[in-house]
Amino acid sequence: KELNIDEKNVLFVYGKGSIKKNNIYNEVKNNLKNHNVIELNNIKPNPDLNKVFEGIKLCKENNIEAVLAVGGGSVIDTSKAIAASYYVNDVWDLFEQKENIEKALPIYTILTISATGSEMNGNSVITNEKENKKWAIRNILLNPKITIIDPSIQKTLPKIQTANGAMDTLSHIMEFYFTFETEETMIALNESLMKSTIKATDILLNNPEDYHARENLCWCATLALNGISGTMGNGGEWQCHLIEHGLSAFKKDLDHGKGLSIIFPAWINYVHNNKPIFKRWAKEIWNKDNVEDALIEMKNKFKSWGLPISLNEVNIYEKDIDEIVDIIIKSPPRNSFIKELNKDDYKKILISCLKV
Amino acid sequence: KELNIDEKNVLFVYGKGSIKKNNIYNEVKNNLKNHNVIELNNIKPNPDLNKVFEGIKLCKENNIEAVLAVGGGSVIDTSKAIAASYYVNDVWDLFEQKENIEKALPIYTILTISATGSEMNGNSVITNEKENKKWAIRNILLNPKITIIDPSIQKTLPKIQTANGAMDTLSHIMEFYFTFETEETMIALNESLMKSTIKATDILLNNPEDYHARENLCWCATLALNGISGTMGNGGEWQCHLIEHGLSAFKKDLDHGKGLSIIFPAWINYVHNNKPIFKRWAKEIWNKDNVEDALIEMKNKFKSWGLPISLNEVNIYEKDIDEIVDIIIKSPPRNSFIKELNKDDYKKILISCLKV
Repeated sequence: KELNIDEKNVLFVYGKGSIKKNNIYNEVKNNLKNHNVIELNNIKPNPDLNKVFEGIKLCKENNIEAVLAVGGGSVIDTSKAIAASYYVNDVWDLFEQKENIEKALPIYTILTISATGSEMNGNSVITNEKENKKWAIRNILLNPKITIIDPSIQKTLPKIQTANGAMDTLSHIMEFYFTFETEETMIALNESLMKSTIKATDILLNNPEDYHARENLCWCATLALNGISGTMGNGGEWQCHLIEHGLSAFKKDLDHGKGLSIIFPAWINYVHNNKPIFKRWAKEIWNKDNVEDALIEMKNKFKSWGLPISLNEVNIYEKDIDEIVDIIIKSPPRNSFIKELNKDDYKKILISCLKV
Repeated sequence: KELNIDEKNVLFVYGKGSIKKNNIYNEVKNNLKNHNVIELNNIKPNPDLNKVFEGIKLCKENNIEAVLAVGGGSVIDTSKAIAASYYVNDVWDLFEQKENIEKALPIYTILTISATGSEMNGNSVITNEKENKKWAIRNILLNPKITIIDPSIQKTLPKIQTANGAMDTLSHIMEFYFTFETEETMIALNESLMKSTIKATDILLNNPEDYHARENLCWCATLALNGISGTMGNGGEWQCHLIEHGLSAFKKDLDHGKGLSIIFPAWINYVHNNKPIFKRWAKEIWNKDNVEDALIEMKNKFKSWGLPISLNEVNIYEKDIDEIVDIIIKSPPRNSFIKELNKDDYKKILISCLKV
C-alpha cells in the first residue's frame, strides 16, 4: 500500500509497539525510505500533554514538515496537538482557548483501531495530567490530509478494544441523535449507523476476523464523527463526553469506551423525560415501547460486549464523586439542548450508576 | 445572506428568470456590487452545449475568474462545463474523454431546486443536440467552492418539479444501493435516505411550504450524490441513467425525473432475479415480501406524485425505440455489476414500459 507524503522531514508517531508485531512498522519505514524520519512512540491511552511537548521539541530540532500518525485516537490526537502547537509558545493555551490555531503541519494517518473518528476530523483530546484536565481542540486545519483505513489490520485487536471502539462510535452518534427533532433525514441516517454498529460488533465479538463486519464497523466509526452525522443539527449535546472526560481525568487508566458505557445509560435515564426522540430511539434501536426497557436492553448489550455498566466495576466509589464533579464543572462549558446540567445534576447522575 | 466570492470578475449564470420573480436575482446583484458581473441566462433543462460555448466566449472576452451558478442542475452543470472547458480548445473533447480536465475556474452555487446533487459534486451532464448525445464529465476540480442551500427558496416550486427532484434523488440512491452486498452500513444508510426522501415528498406534494419536509428533501438530494451514498462501493450501476440519457437525448423536452420514473421500475423488473438486495429493498422500502409487489407499490407512488410510468404517457412510441437504443449503445460504456445489458436488453426494457 502506497502512502504518498510530499514533505521530506516526517515525525512518525505511534503507540506502544503493536505495529512492530503486525509488520505495519516495517511497511511504513520502507515506504518512507526516501524521507528523513524521526520517531515518537510510547503514546498511551488518554494521551498526555508531556508527549505533545516531547513531539514539539523533536519537530523544532529536526525541522519537521509533516506528522504521520500510525495508531488509534490517542496517537492521532497527540499528532494533531503537535501539528497545531508547533507554532505557538504554550501548547496548552490552545486548549484553554487563549490562542487560536492559525496554522498546522500537515497530518497523515494510518488507522489501527476504529473508535474516535479522529482519522477524518479536526478534533484532538489531550490530558493535562498535572491539572487533571482532559480537554479538546478542534480545527479544520487538523483534518488529516490523507487517512488510510484498512479493516484487515484490525482483525488482531483484543475483543475489549473492539468493544471500546464500538461504544465510542455509538456515543458519538447518540451525542448528535438525541438533539434532532424535525430533521427526519438525519434521525433516520443516525439510526442506520447505530444499528449497523451494533450488528457489526455482535458479529466481531464472536468472530474478530470477519472482514465484512470489520469494514462496516470501521466505516460506522468514521461516519459517526466526520461531520456527516451532525449535519442539519446544532452541534450535538456532548454532556456524556464531558462527564466521561471527568471520569478519565480522575482515573487515568480508564478506557474512554468503558467510561461511556457506564455514563450513557445513566444520563439517558436522567434526562429523557419521555421526549419523542428517546421513545423513537427505544423502538427503532432496541425494539422496546418505552425508554426504561430500552435502557435495560442497552445495558445487557454492553455487558455482553464485556463493558462495565457501573462505576464500582471500574473501582470508582461514592467517596470519589465530589472530586470528579469538581473536574467536570471546571471544564469549558458546553451548549445543552436536551437538558442543562449543574453540579447537583452531575452528582446525581454519577451516584445513579455507582452500582449495577 | 452573505456569499463571499474572492474573485473580481464573475460570470453569473441562471435559467429562465424565475429568480427575478422571487428576489434572488436582486439579492445576488446586490451581494456582487463590488464585482464585475457578466450574465449568462436562459439555460434550459437538459442544458445544451451551445450555451457552454456562449459562456466560454463571455469568459474570454471579460477575463472571467469565477463562475456563479444560481439555479438547479442545468444551470450548475452548464457552469461547471464552462469552468472546465475554459482551458481547452474544444469543449466536447472533455466529454469524449479525448482530453482531461487539468484546471477549472472556481465555481460557486446558490441552489434553487434540489434534484441532481450537482451542488456538492464534480459532475456535469451536457447535451450535444447536434450529435444526439447527453454525456457527462466528472472531476473533483468541478466541486463548487461554496454552495448555498436555502430550503425556503424552494417552497414556490411547481409540484411537478418537486416530484422530478425527488425522483432524481431516489434514482441516485438506487444506482448505488442495488450494487451493495456485504456493506451493511451503506445498505442501511441508503435505505434511510430513500425512506426520508419518500416521506418528505409525500408531505411536500400536499403542502409545498412545509419547511421541515423541504429541508429534509434538500439534504437527501445532496447526500444522494455528494459521494457519501456510494462509499464502500464500486461506483454504482448507472444503467438507468444511461437509458434515461438516451430517452432525453431523443426527446429533448423530457424531464430527467420523468424519464427515470418510467425506466427504473422497468429496469428493476428486468434485472432483479430475486437477488437478496432487491428482496430486502422490497421489504424495507415498500413493506412487501416480493419484488413484483414492491414494483406495483413504487409505480403507484410515482403516479401519486404526478410522474409517468410508461413511455406512451410522454409521447414515446414503439416506432421510436430503435433510434433510442442506437443513442444508448453509442454512449460511453459503463461498468455493470448487477447485469450487463446489450442492445437487445435495452430494447426489451424499453418495450416493457411502453404502456402502463
